[in-house]
Amino acid sequence: MADLKSTFLKVYAHLKEELLHDPAFEWTPDSRQWVDRMLDYNVPGGKLNRGLSVIDSYKLLMEGRELTEVEIFLASSLGWCIEWLQAYFLVLDDIMDNSHTRRGQPCWFRVPKVGLIAANDGILLRNHIPRILKKHFREKPYYVDLLDLFNEVEFQTACGQMIDLITTLEGEKDLSKYTLSLHRRIVQYKTAYYSFYLPVACALLMAGENLDNHVAVKDILVEMGTYFQVQDDYLDCFGDPETIGKIGTDIEDFKCSWLAVKALELSNEEQKKLLNENYGKADPANVEKVKALYNELNLQGVFAEYESKSYEKLITSIEAHPSKAVQAVLKSFLAKIYKRQK
Amino acid sequence: MADLKSTFLKVYAHLKEELLHDPAFEWTPDSRQWVDRMLDYNVPGGKLNRGLSVIDSYKLLMEGRELTEVEIFLASSLGWCIEWLQAYFLVLDDIMDNSHTRRGQPCWFRVPKVGLIAANDGILLRNHIPRILKKHFREKPYYVDLLDLFNEVEFQTACGQMIDLITTLEGEKDLSKYTLSLHRRIVQYKTAYYSFYLPVACALLMAGENLDNHVAVKDILVEMGTYFQVQDDYLDCFGDPETIGKIGTDIEDFKCSWLAVKALELSNEEQKKLLNENYGKADPANVEKVKALYNELNLQGVFAEYESKSYEKLITSIEAHPSKAVQAVLKSFLAKIYKRQK
Ligand SMILES: [Mg+2]
Ligand SMILES: [Mg+2]
Ligand SMILES: [Mg+2]
Ligand SMILES: [Mg+2]
Ligand SMILES: [Mg+2]
Ligand SMILES: [Mg+2]
Repeated sequence: MADLKSTFLKVYAHLKEELLHDPAFEWTPDSRQWVDRMLDYNVPGGKLNRGLSVIDSYKLLMEGRELTEVEIFLASSLGWCIEWLQAYFLVLDDIMDNSHTRRGQPCWFRVPKVGLIAANDGILLRNHIPRILKKHFREKPYYVDLLDLFNEVEFQTACGQMIDLITTLEGEKDLSKYTLSLHRRIVQYKTAYYSFYLPVACALLMAGENLDNHVAVKDILVEMGTYFQVQDDYLDCFGDPETIGKIGTDIEDFKCSWLAVKALELSNEEQKKLLNENYGKADPANVEKVKALYNELNLQGVFAEYESKSYEKLITSIEAHPSKAVQAVLKSFLAKIYKRQK
Repeated sequence: MADLKSTFLKVYAHLKEELLHDPAFEWTPDSRQWVDRMLDYNVPGGKLNRGLSVIDSYKLLMEGRELTEVEIFLASSLGWCIEWLQAYFLVLDDIMDNSHTRRGQPCWFRVPKVGLIAANDGILLRNHIPRILKKHFREKPYYVDLLDLFNEVEFQTACGQMIDLITTLEGEKDLSKYTLSLHRRIVQYKTAYYSFYLPVACALLMAGENLDNHVAVKDILVEMGTYFQVQDDYLDCFGDPETIGKIGTDIEDFKCSWLAVKALELSNEEQKKLLNENYGKADPANVEKVKALYNELNLQGVFAEYESKSYEKLITSIEAHPSKAVQAVLKSFLAKIYKRQK
């Protein structure tokens, strides 16, 4: 596994060199240096789960046989395309959310001399994906499907961002719109497609599959992505800050969190009033009142119930799938996230 | 012509309706309304020259015969993809340049309640292009070439933006880097590919041509795009504000304008010193000194010379092309811009 990660990182270095010498642009020393630094700052510093899972999934689809060097390179390149996509979303999301830190360092747009050039850097990150795909997959029979896949998933993610942004529009703090259906929609579009469906879809295409025949797989992965984000919302409040590596601020930030949605659903009129008066305020006294209500409503228990129900449902769906190899891919994803503490 | 424009605008309405009902996303009334307004605000309000020229070019490639309704619809759709691309670049460029107005109205990000959501709206505009292409061109033999074309041109434009942004980095006002070679590079990448090459390339693909066989056409159009931008730089200072519809501020904004580059090239040490002391300052006294130097150096004459030389060179290249239909396309572009006053 440590070995797979170091192979994966070598592919990053290789792809970066190619991009820095892309013949479609006439590089200057300044521009090459800028992109070099921008890539190192934004692309490889995450957990790389999404990218690595393309290789894992492809291997399982090949029934666990050893992959050739070429296969590892190609699966890694697709994995990196997903990491590039994620970097692009994060660079722009941090600008829009006016965030301060990301992955333990200042957000890219906060780095001196970068500022709003970061918006164009986000665009560049996005544009690197088709460059990588064209360079390494142009002759593959599934090339056009790869382009369509990345385009569709990016579109869905941008739509998810849009509903997230317009529901938390400044100055319109109105909890009544926070329903389970809105929460599901934001999470599904903003996170699930690119984080869960996309890696597996890349592996399926490499394996020669037609994605139209795998709607069931997509549905299961989107379901899993939704469950993953509910965990994220739960850990933001109930997780151990030491373990998750940050102090959650969803309550302060008036986020459409699963916990807020559940609390609203389970509250009587008085409790709703308390939520409306205290949710989305920076003062610790307000935050404490919200947390006390969450405890009063036993949201930890409600979550535990949700978690085991989701797990059972997912296992049942997975086991209904005709292919053992696909089942293995899906179970491997589920195992990585079930009852996670971070 | 007025008729062609109204047909073109009908296609906009049609494409917008399709996008607002795209089945890849689960729309809410709010999100549909947001995108509807965002599109009307940003997409159709320009001169539409780029978009319309796809239809003109395709017709000339068909040797002037009447186009069928289907052909007009398809060429218009590609034209609109270019307008969408332009809207995407402009929305983000205005954020990065902190601009105030665009096409006679406030920049989108300055509209109340929009703010930095505009960055995601730019992304959405960009994402609409592959949605339009997939819906209407998926079954065409040139579908994958269209995707590659739009991807490559977008990449080149983003690279052009990057060098523009990093050379005018705040707090580094250093005229010594403003050379003709840097100017040509910025202009070629930031403007020429998407404004001049892209419309013709779309028409060539629709006509069944392989773009690899049309490198000469690309070179001529990029040359023409460069000439177009030199005119733009010239008119910013010497054009009639009434006619061009705005008061130029390239001198105040420390732009890498063709005039500044030529002035530096023709200046003696003393004149260079004057430029260094006065270029890029908002005070009208500084601006006047720069303009006086431009006159002293006879930049109007230098430009007139450049203009006629460029024209001759372009005509010679065009007439060397083996196809009369392609010649007609290129001459039609050139006729639209030669000696333009706005
Ligand atoms: Mg954020
Ligand atoms: Mg956000
Ligand atoms: Mg969270
Ligand atoms: Mg601008
Ligand atoms: Mg700009
Ligand atoms: Mg100008």
